[in-house]
Amino acid sequence: MELLDAFKWRYATKKFDSNKKLDPVLVDKIVEAAWIAPTSSGLQPFEVFVITNQELKNKIVPFAHDQQIVADCSHLLVFAAWDNYTAERIDQIYSHITVGRDQPADRYQAYTDRLKSMYLGQPEELNFTHTARQAYIAFGFAIAEAASLKVDATPMEGFINEEVDNLLNLKEKGLKSVTMLPIGYRDEENDWLVNLKKVRHPKEKFITEIA
Amino acid sequence: MELLDAFKWRYATKKFDSNKKLDPVLVDKIVEAAWIAPTSSGLQPFEVFVITNQELKNKIVPFAHDQQIVADCSHLLVFAAWDNYTAERIDQIYSHITVGRDQPADRYQAYTDRLKSMYLGQPEELNFTHTARQAYIAFGFAIAEAASLKVDATPMEGFINEEVDNLLNLKEKGLKSVTMLPIGYRDEENDWLVNLKKVRHPKEKFITEIA
Repeated sequence: MELLDAFKWRYATKKFDSNKKLDPVLVDKIVEAAWIAPTSSGLQPFEVFVITNQELKNKIVPFAHDQQIVADCSHLLVFAAWDNYTAERIDQIYSHITVGRDQPADRYQAYTDRLKSMYLGQPEELNFTHTARQAYIAFGFAIAEAASLKVDATPMEGFINEEVDNLLNLKEKGLKSVTMLPIGYRDEENDWLVNLKKVRHPKEKFITEIA
Repeated sequence: MELLDAFKWRYATKKFDSNKKLDPVLVDKIVEAAWIAPTSSGLQPFEVFVITNQELKNKIVPFAHDQQIVADCSHLLVFAAWDNYTAERIDQIYSHITVGRDQPADRYQAYTDRLKSMYLGQPEELNFTHTARQAYIAFGFAIAEAASLKVDATPMEGFINEEVDNLLNLKEKGLKSVTMLPIGYRDEENDWLVNLKKVRHPKEKFITEIA
């Protein structure tokens, strides 16, 4: 199947079959897609939480407009971005890259100095805007991977971030939740959205060609 | 090929072969992937510009840290998000959805009222943060689609947005550029990044399982 067909097949699942659990191999692939996604300067400023604990999923429901998909899904992914850039965080990933590429210790010194001078003087809020955007690219990759595997998924932003942050102890990790992705298998009979046509802006309005 | 293999194959191309142009069929698929991507409440608050005009591409180079990839790529995609949510924009897409799904005229009245009460009282800046994030999901979908087609692409944020907005007359369209995606074919011999190992945070640091 072409990827574009998978994109047309997917939809924001509104009702999961809570009895059907995903093969962990599929979950690993979806998370790996998020992991391998490109990020600005390769900083990869976010983490992914993979929740199967039913009690925790249930606790999140009231903070997600009471949407039962959070409880009924097989696995709940939470994408959480760095609350800020720090010298330690920049050094850590570039030390790791240096080792991973078997390069001399100072290979990225000038580059990381440049990144630090760019980010460390900026307000935390502006840096978080940037880290969150990187998480969204990976979020797109995870949604794409799920679709390619015929795994149902529901991209979610509508939840009380601070409450989810508390439940996952994100603040002490220097993280803030940005999106959630319940994944699993649809309950086709009880999903009101499954048969509704996918409608987008007319292409001529969405696309401008400049030749 | 599995999508995950395509994700491992792709890299941020640093040198394009300016003599190799993409089949327009491939470009259409990449843009369609962005078009079909999920967005919050289905508002799809962004547009995509597809630039082949060489003069315009050349003009963008100095506003993109002089990166020659902008000039050398086959097609330059620019993702531009709505500068704000407005009642007209919300009504327009939901009128379109109502017709597309053959539903009664007032089907989404309560829903769009809710969206308006949520967004129209918020500062423009906060709404733009949100529209830009939606564009990033689609950006991820376009990068994924390109990889699946073995088309090279370079995700780019490092450019002077206001200058690109001016060149594309985005302000008068109520848009702001957020990302660019030069696509085409790599110049393998002259690309310094092509053979460098893709390194990411250790998975045990990136992924937290809560079972």
